Amino acid sequence: MADSPNCDLKSLSPLQLFEKVTEQGDKVRALKAGKAPKDEIDAAVRMLLSLKLSYKATTGQDYQAGLPPKDLVLINNGTTKEEDEDLVDPWNVQTSNAKGVDYDKLIVRFGSSKIDTDLINRIERAIGQKPHHFLRRGIFFSHRDMDQVLDAYENKKPFYLYTGRGPSSQAMHVGHLIPFMFTKWLQEVFDVPLVIQLTDDEKYLWKDMTVEKAYEYARENAKDIIACGFDINKTFIFSDLDYLGTSAGFYKNIVKVQKHVTFNQVKGIFGFTDSDCIGKISFPAIQAAPSFSSSFPQIFNGKENIQCLIPCAIDQDPYFRMTRDVAPRIGQPKPALLHSVFFPALQGAQTKMSASDPNSSIFLTDTPKQIKTKINKHAFSGGRDTIEEHRKYGGNCDVDVSFMYLTFFLEDDDRLEQLKQAYTSGELLTGELKKVLIETMQPLVAAHQERRKQVTDEIVKQFMTPRKLAFEF
Amino acid sequence: MADSPNCDLKSLSPLQLFEKVTEQGDKVRALKAGKAPKDEIDAAVRMLLSLKLSYKATTGQDYQAGLPPKDLVLINNGTTKEEDEDLVDPWNVQTSNAKGVDYDKLIVRFGSSKIDTDLINRIERAIGQKPHHFLRRGIFFSHRDMDQVLDAYENKKPFYLYTGRGPSSQAMHVGHLIPFMFTKWLQEVFDVPLVIQLTDDEKYLWKDMTVEKAYEYARENAKDIIACGFDINKTFIFSDLDYLGTSAGFYKNIVKVQKHVTFNQVKGIFGFTDSDCIGKISFPAIQAAPSFSSSFPQIFNGKENIQCLIPCAIDQDPYFRMTRDVAPRIGQPKPALLHSVFFPALQGAQTKMSASDPNSSIFLTDTPKQIKTKINKHAFSGGRDTIEEHRKYGGNCDVDVSFMYLTFFLEDDDRLEQLKQAYTSGELLTGELKKVLIETMQPLVAAHQERRKQVTDEIVKQFMTPRKLAFEF
Repeated sequence: MADSPNCDLKSLSPLQLFEKVTEQGDKVRALKAGKAPKDEIDAAVRMLLSLKLSYKATTGQDYQAGLPPKDLVLINNGTTKEEDEDLVDPWNVQTSNAKGVDYDKLIVRFGSSKIDTDLINRIERAIGQKPHHFLRRGIFFSHRDMDQVLDAYENKKPFYLYTGRGPSSQAMHVGHLIPFMFTKWLQEVFDVPLVIQLTDDEKYLWKDMTVEKAYEYARENAKDIIACGFDINKTFIFSDLDYLGTSAGFYKNIVKVQKHVTFNQVKGIFGFTDSDCIGKISFPAIQAAPSFSSSFPQIFNGKENIQCLIPCAIDQDPYFRMTRDVAPRIGQPKPALLHSVFFPALQGAQTKMSASDPNSSIFLTDTPKQIKTKINKHAFSGGRDTIEEHRKYGGNCDVDVSFMYLTFFLEDDDRLEQLKQAYTSGELLTGELKKVLIETMQPLVAAHQERRKQVTDEIVKQFMTPRKLAFEF
Repeated sequence: MADSPNCDLKSLSPLQLFEKVTEQGDKVRALKAGKAPKDEIDAAVRMLLSLKLSYKATTGQDYQAGLPPKDLVLINNGTTKEEDEDLVDPWNVQTSNAKGVDYDKLIVRFGSSKIDTDLINRIERAIGQKPHHFLRRGIFFSHRDMDQVLDAYENKKPFYLYTGRGPSSQAMHVGHLIPFMFTKWLQEVFDVPLVIQLTDDEKYLWKDMTVEKAYEYARENAKDIIACGFDINKTFIFSDLDYLGTSAGFYKNIVKVQKHVTFNQVKGIFGFTDSDCIGKISFPAIQAAPSFSSSFPQIFNGKENIQCLIPCAIDQDPYFRMTRDVAPRIGQPKPALLHSVFFPALQGAQTKMSASDPNSSIFLTDTPKQIKTKINKHAFSGGRDTIEEHRKYGGNCDVDVSFMYLTFFLEDDDRLEQLKQAYTSGELLTGELKKVLIETMQPLVAAHQERRKQVTDEIVKQFMTPRKLAFEF
């Protein structure tokens, strides 16, 4: 604790230094909140000041909480990007902004459309109820052709939902539930069938993992997905490794997409290189094919050209931009899309979470105690360094991860608004905000665990059996 | 007929000129054989001489029957090749030599082994009967690991056969039968199961063809293959478009191969470019996967790692070089191979035949009259320009297509040797040799047509149904 903070700071990169300062700031706040002895607090504050000086000496910038050093140029597949441009593709999400990715810019860059008040109101009229808080709060913020889906719905024409997950490990965290929670709601309010793709083949191709392991993860993940409450009569969950060998229509659509996309195109869209394996290069067609109802002859009773709507995180959009480009050339309708923002890591909104770091989020297997400890220890705070400063200037909800998590999981709009006001004004302290989050997440995760326990192997088998879904086309 | 041959010769390429001379030579021989009026023959001979002069003026070389102009540099995917190197890959076979591809050089280039007398004798001992004339005559001339297959066979260890066809059209010609005739013989003498892949997906990817058409061709081609006489209890024929969606093991092996082969590798092996579609780029894995018995769980009762032996034309070797490279890395045995020479076009051994040119070979649907006309009109002759020269110097069996065809289809060794002697000595004229070929091919094709008529849709369905084959593993 009494070590000079300068001992090995010279060897640190600006980003590592930034993290050291942030860490030390957290420590000072914790000591103060815990009413630690004055000399201990003073020592920690001195180290913080010293670290801030080192940071300024190295970067030429003042340390600002939540704003990593500006010269952190992000690299995407060998292409140097604009300093302030976010990196978003299916394998990387990086931004230098503590508020997270600039989604308005992303809409312009991807060429999608903003989900505006008009569209939300139209959805409300169509379904005759209040739209999901993910829509109201801009968590699903972008779309492609949602108006056409509503046109069809209002004209009693059928559509179906398609979403998915790459089963990279057994461990799913609460962020993984976002698209499924929203999809479940869509299934309920529109009363439509749903297909859920588990891309175990993708995980086998990308990771150091056997085919058997990837398939095992797919089945385990299916349990967590089923525990979200999908209607067994209207939902088909499939593993690629499994379903490709049992479907008369899936491979035909895959090969059709594969004929109409060149290596040049996937190179441009996904950044593949000549050193990538041919499995990766052709994989995008496998994620594209479920957008076409003919990939599921059993489910849709052989009916083709049913409109598809895909709720997914915005990083998956490149797959579906490609799919929409190919669709008319193989005589299929373009899938419509609803895009969500990314779920932030506990450490801050600069990066997407990693399932391989247990401290980066709240996992679906966490105990109430683990949830409490993680939030208290790791949730990046937008609060001030001292209680006095906080009371005076207030906290910053835009970078505070606890507040962000509450926008995802606290359904009560009024309560959320009260918390925001109180935190911004300085009335509510970081520890108090974290307590609200802990009390929100503990029952939510416990209830999920309870539902998951009910999901037997027999139920998984039923969900994963290709069959006619309870819907007339 | 009296047109000046020089009218538009200046615009012709050396190769086109070469073909004109060859054509005119054939005409002169036909007129003489048909005892045409003397003035008609004289006019044709004058034109032949004039064409030969034009050829020399353009190329600086004397016209030599069967030897196209020397400056015909063959291009393989942008790589300039040695002038005298043959071009052999799954989509192109080109040689500047009228005797056909230099197979000894190909063995060195591909790194395979020659099927020598020792190996043929060993096969004879193993099966206790005379080896097929395709082996005795060097039509199957190269192999990989055939000794290991014989080791296994002698130790009562099982193996299976795998061959295939790309169903590019309904029309199959006699050359297409070569691998199947040989495979049928292998199945009989070794008493082993056989899988036959119809790469309708490949044809869809490479040609301007719908998925439905490619599948239809696959089923039609299956009839001609079945008519070769395969044992229905030991043979499984499958269309990729069909089987991929019904097999629990096929896709898993495909994705395993796809993980272990990079774009750089398929670029090197097959000459793919960045403009090729991702379907082509990943296709080699689909041709590789049937080399592994786990692709056929129903057939082999779930038994894995059964040795595979692949009889095929040498142009398919690149696929299996790749497969053998990958096999140990995915825990599978390397397939063994038996390579055949190419079946020559009627017009000469410089190129592989094209199913799209009805005159390039004898088709399985040809009538006796069509067979006669095609052979008389199009079979490139190694005979001399005049009867007198022929009697004096003799014909050249090395470039004579009628003689080549007889080495494939005339089973009687003594008769073939007599014909060779007689033709080489000048005793036997071109017309007489052609007559022997006509009399060999007419009953052979008629018998095939008769057997094909017996192949009902029900029989095709049986062959194409995944099922346990009559063999104990």
